[in-house]
Amino acid sequence: MNIPNSDLPRVIVIGAGFAGLEIAKNLNTDHYQLVILDKNNFHTFQPLLYQVASAGLEPDSIAYPIRKTLRSKKNTFFRLTEVENIDLKQSIVQTSIGDISYDKLIIATGATNNFFNNHSIEENALPMKSVVDALNLRSKILGNFEKALNTMDLSEREELTNFVIVGAGPTGVELAGALAELKNKILPKDFPDLDLRTMQINLIEAAPRVLSAMSEESSIKAHKYLKELGVQIWTDTLVKDYSNNTVETSTGTVFKSDTLIWAAGVAGTFPNGIHESEVGRGNRIIVDDFSKIKGYDNAYVVGDACLIQSEQYPQGLPMLGSVAKQQGNYISKAFNKMAKKKKVGPFIYNDQGTMATVGRNKAVVELTKMKIQGSFAWLMWMVIHLMLLVGFRNRLVVFINWTWNYFNYNNGLRLIIRPFKEKKDVVGIK
Amino acid sequence: MNIPNSDLPRVIVIGAGFAGLEIAKNLNTDHYQLVILDKNNFHTFQPLLYQVASAGLEPDSIAYPIRKTLRSKKNTFFRLTEVENIDLKQSIVQTSIGDISYDKLIIATGATNNFFNNHSIEENALPMKSVVDALNLRSKILGNFEKALNTMDLSEREELTNFVIVGAGPTGVELAGALAELKNKILPKDFPDLDLRTMQINLIEAAPRVLSAMSEESSIKAHKYLKELGVQIWTDTLVKDYSNNTVETSTGTVFKSDTLIWAAGVAGTFPNGIHESEVGRGNRIIVDDFSKIKGYDNAYVVGDACLIQSEQYPQGLPMLGSVAKQQGNYISKAFNKMAKKKKVGPFIYNDQGTMATVGRNKAVVELTKMKIQGSFAWLMWMVIHLMLLVGFRNRLVVFINWTWNYFNYNNGLRLIIRPFKEKKDVVGIK
Repeated sequence: MNIPNSDLPRVIVIGAGFAGLEIAKNLNTDHYQLVILDKNNFHTFQPLLYQVASAGLEPDSIAYPIRKTLRSKKNTFFRLTEVENIDLKQSIVQTSIGDISYDKLIIATGATNNFFNNHSIEENALPMKSVVDALNLRSKILGNFEKALNTMDLSEREELTNFVIVGAGPTGVELAGALAELKNKILPKDFPDLDLRTMQINLIEAAPRVLSAMSEESSIKAHKYLKELGVQIWTDTLVKDYSNNTVETSTGTVFKSDTLIWAAGVAGTFPNGIHESEVGRGNRIIVDDFSKIKGYDNAYVVGDACLIQSEQYPQGLPMLGSVAKQQGNYISKAFNKMAKKKKVGPFIYNDQGTMATVGRNKAVVELTKMKIQGSFAWLMWMVIHLMLLVGFRNRLVVFINWTWNYFNYNNGLRLIIRPFKEKKDVVGIK
Repeated sequence: MNIPNSDLPRVIVIGAGFAGLEIAKNLNTDHYQLVILDKNNFHTFQPLLYQVASAGLEPDSIAYPIRKTLRSKKNTFFRLTEVENIDLKQSIVQTSIGDISYDKLIIATGATNNFFNNHSIEENALPMKSVVDALNLRSKILGNFEKALNTMDLSEREELTNFVIVGAGPTGVELAGALAELKNKILPKDFPDLDLRTMQINLIEAAPRVLSAMSEESSIKAHKYLKELGVQIWTDTLVKDYSNNTVETSTGTVFKSDTLIWAAGVAGTFPNGIHESEVGRGNRIIVDDFSKIKGYDNAYVVGDACLIQSEQYPQGLPMLGSVAKQQGNYISKAFNKMAKKKKVGPFIYNDQGTMATVGRNKAVVELTKMKIQGSFAWLMWMVIHLMLLVGFRNRLVVFINWTWNYFNYNNGLRLIIRPFKEKKDVVGIK
């Protein structure tokens, strides 16, 4: 890899998600040479992926070119590449475009889907972890309505328009709500000749309640909102198998569905080279209070890919964007202090609360000192998400889209740019 | 295909381009049942595809959902399907979702690339006729800059950053200008560590001048604009072969380039079933003054797919969006008249002029009575294109993007959502 040598110690950051971007913003490159590696040339704002999938936003609104965030930052290099291996002992990162040595390494590779080793689900379910996933899902959903028009067989039409979402965390709940609004407001206008009574949205959750990471109060409210929109909720239910359009569950209930969307679990993901003794629960790399991999002086992990094991956080921290962001901020400032030989304290997480939106005027927000629901929570959810988006242009475009949809009940983006292809049809493309 | 039978005569329109959309808008469905077939669920505004390719606009700004244009239009059905065959004698259209009979047929399938039977070019060149083409091209262009960072071999870097555009019609000229502006304004900021001196934009044209369909005055001006932006122009030059990154031309000049963009020729395209005696120059279906296929009473062709052969237009008409739009308008109104047993006159083309933009403040416009160049022409070009876009939301988003870029020299859309794949890597996807 052609990165010029410099007298400054080289920091390699793998991954430009919430944590990586925060490091790029805050690391003092008077003291370090910064090299950022990512397999995409853009940062993805994952909390709004579900709106791309449900045809409410276009990818460019929630993706931001990494190079643009690095502009005018000196001693900083971005390379578009897949990291193949990390040699922690030799301090070398091996990539598809060559090897590169580091003085300090920060692994910020995030999380991927966790299918809990269920191969039938892994094979047939649709994930929603990346922009491409979300676009595939959109093509599949819209394509299925087009297909449903071509059959008079009611059970076939039901399969095509029965959407099963597994996992009622924020992602599952938000997608279920968005699909319900598509069904209620948009599809009847677009498909006047399709009987939408066959369309179902089934939300399956292993826990006894939706949004189980939030309070019971929020949970009950979100449940009520979902019911109002027409989402069928199946709590205490585990999905056991999904093949031939048949979803089998732990309760014996069987769903016939052509579209199973997986929002039930995530696991840390990182390149080869990490010894399994260094990996803990949820496939995450175990780090100490300082985000450092135990036994190494110069290798750190932040965000969803790390599992803090310390006295303060014996259970680790949740896999959330806000944790990743704070860890990225912490680690870059810690490095800045180290460069000036200042003392560095351990990472402390500042929990600012959680939120989820179900639909128009329907959201639940939990802050440290209060819980809010309904229209005001929905407004808060929108304002906070707009603020969190990277780039003024993105904020403006999303704001226009949302305002537009608010007054028109009518998002304009129901495009199938690339038709959905079954995995078996595609060779050579992941 | 499940289209309900009705007492009204059924009009099938194949293709929802400029002509098809115009028919959908104007055909009186009190008198006809209208069935529109297209392989995409959206209409593409082709004149701005080059801005998608050069990362200035996103696809959703120039694509518009067909179903949305048909809303609240009675007796109207859209089906997403590929037409496989037309049986003109039996009045049946055969599609991937079944057969459908018609009372009147309008073929509005447009044009595709014409590689003039040169297989090496067809195999290796990149076209720009669809949204997917434009996105592939963008991924390729941006990806090549990322790749160029990884090599110290100057000739390899030159190949990666040498863009050869074949054809200096409006599409070729506009794309060349857009790439030049990328080079001059955007890439130096995004790739501070890449030496852009190797980047070249070569525009090759068989005719003696660029924009040869316009006046010599406009041609000279456009040539000057292109030169100012740093585009190399090669007129009187035919591309003979393109393989192994080597472009061979009729003048003996050889270019080494990883990216050859084909904007040199189009040919009509339509489903099987049309007898070759019915096909004329540019692979277009021969029609009379009334857009009717000779020898058939109920089969019409409009837009790029038709070649008018009549006393009035012995040379046919140019393959332009404005012709297609007018023909679509003509034919739907002709049908409306026929339904009321009124007399129908022949199609008469109203030439409103042509235009092309090269870059910021650099455009050429030819109206019937005057020629305009420079900033005012550029402004006109923008206003007219904004007005021609379908949908208020699209106009607004494009307007914001253009205004933004005008003041910031900085479009925010340099995303490689799906990496470019060589054809040989891809099986099962066209």
